[in-house]
Amino acid sequence: MPFDLQEYLQQRVRMVDSALHRYLPDEEMRPQVLHRAMRYSTMSGGKRLRPVLVIAGAEAVGGTADVVLPTACAIELIHTFSLIHDDLPAIDNDTLRRGRPTCHVQFGEAVAILAGDALFATAFELVARNVETAPAERVVRVLQVIAEASGTRGMVGGQMVDIESERKPVDAETLEYIHRHKTAALIRASVVSGAILAGAEQWQVDALSRYGELAGLAFQIADDLLNVTGDPGKTGKAVGTDAERGKATYPALYGVEASRQRAYQLVKEATEALRPFGEKAEPLRALAYLMVEREG
Amino acid sequence: MPFDLQEYLQQRVRMVDSALHRYLPDEEMRPQVLHRAMRYSTMSGGKRLRPVLVIAGAEAVGGTADVVLPTACAIELIHTFSLIHDDLPAIDNDTLRRGRPTCHVQFGEAVAILAGDALFATAFELVARNVETAPAERVVRVLQVIAEASGTRGMVGGQMVDIESERKPVDAETLEYIHRHKTAALIRASVVSGAILAGAEQWQVDALSRYGELAGLAFQIADDLLNVTGDPGKTGKAVGTDAERGKATYPALYGVEASRQRAYQLVKEATEALRPFGEKAEPLRALAYLMVEREG
Repeated sequence: MPFDLQEYLQQRVRMVDSALHRYLPDEEMRPQVLHRAMRYSTMSGGKRLRPVLVIAGAEAVGGTADVVLPTACAIELIHTFSLIHDDLPAIDNDTLRRGRPTCHVQFGEAVAILAGDALFATAFELVARNVETAPAERVVRVLQVIAEASGTRGMVGGQMVDIESERKPVDAETLEYIHRHKTAALIRASVVSGAILAGAEQWQVDALSRYGELAGLAFQIADDLLNVTGDPGKTGKAVGTDAERGKATYPALYGVEASRQRAYQLVKEATEALRPFGEKAEPLRALAYLMVEREG
Repeated sequence: MPFDLQEYLQQRVRMVDSALHRYLPDEEMRPQVLHRAMRYSTMSGGKRLRPVLVIAGAEAVGGTADVVLPTACAIELIHTFSLIHDDLPAIDNDTLRRGRPTCHVQFGEAVAILAGDALFATAFELVARNVETAPAERVVRVLQVIAEASGTRGMVGGQMVDIESERKPVDAETLEYIHRHKTAALIRASVVSGAILAGAEQWQVDALSRYGELAGLAFQIADDLLNVTGDPGKTGKAVGTDAERGKATYPALYGVEASRQRAYQLVKEATEALRPFGEKAEPLRALAYLMVEREG
């Protein structure tokens, strides 16, 4: 029977959404507005790509979703935190996200800043909580991987260079830096974290790390392309904003067609890294193609 | 020979400062402006109270500073991150901190937001790194303690209620909530983390947790008092700003004299919790008095 990605996604996303619902702080509890903002931005119909990659990373080495669920949710919270802060007026000044007003538009800037901070903190609480189902040594390794991928050598560092590069001529090296750090780092950390928690051997971690890096780069190129050619009804955000802001993007540097080819080439290389895992990596294989073929 | 707090502090602060210098990302490395902002705010002559409390917490149960140094620095980075975000225009809009322009005044708002985020991430990298000198089980417990004390059930939650309560009549319960969460939570987490890493038994963790909570409350009352009666030349920040903003503070609710008495009462109770530790808790005892007798 061929692998059914839609069914796979549906089941995993349902697990993740239900866990996020449990893990997020109660909106009835003080400070209510902070908890409302945290839920508003997290439970807004995201694709849950990163948590599914955590689960698929675990499965590729023989693990199961329930063992990695807290860390899967942790990475989704880190992703959400970064979106809230990136949308702030002082940074990207975005007012629309997943078809709804962004956090600071809905709750004000102070609440948005603090909701992002609180989501980041909650993420690390969840990583710690994963010790209920995985050995402490593995949890600490995952903590190291996730913290590094989130900070200045990862997501935040990439976002910083992205902002610095607005309205400036950008060379290939800088564009690569932005993509690797802003996006690929956390995608890579997702797959690797799942694998580590499930007891992967070092060669498996290395192969999945390569997969995550390549697929993550492909994902960001696809994201840049959607900002040029996407349908706002499907992406839930405005189109053409990168060009307006003079953002460093793949299509701006190489053109649409070359970018599309590059994305596919990266996905092909990413799936080659999965060869030793056989059938167990079927979800990761399908997810890599989804990352570049998605419409939103 | 009586305990010499000045000498004790000098040695410990030197250790912490030199470790922070090593742990912070290189300013020559990309993204330079982010790394400069992280250092600017961290290496600005702070008292290093929290890292010293981590060390003193370890020493109270027979541990040593070198075993807890990464986590001690991690908590200082979390403290610095919270100051940077609290100073932002959308929150407290402070322009002066430790006698220098605040991070967003010096580097701009976008950089300040991201520098805070990056410091928070780096803090958790350091917690993970503490596995080089302490068992992974202890590191994961400390991760749990620190993440909880930083987020919505701690520092960020307290800051949120603090902002919500500006220019509103505030009852004793809300003021207590703000103090416990905004300040006491991280001070308590500092002492407790040091003790856990050094292998404390549960009764020791409980006693030091009580010490940290009470001393942390006393610290915040002293902070409120300094905003009324302090010398800007010594505190490095403007005086009278709480009253201008209609902030919920202890002196505003109870008056200066009653607040001073309450702070001393709390310190007395805090030191009573240290009794079973004997001489090993001498630094924690002296630090509790320092917290309310400081001039800046």
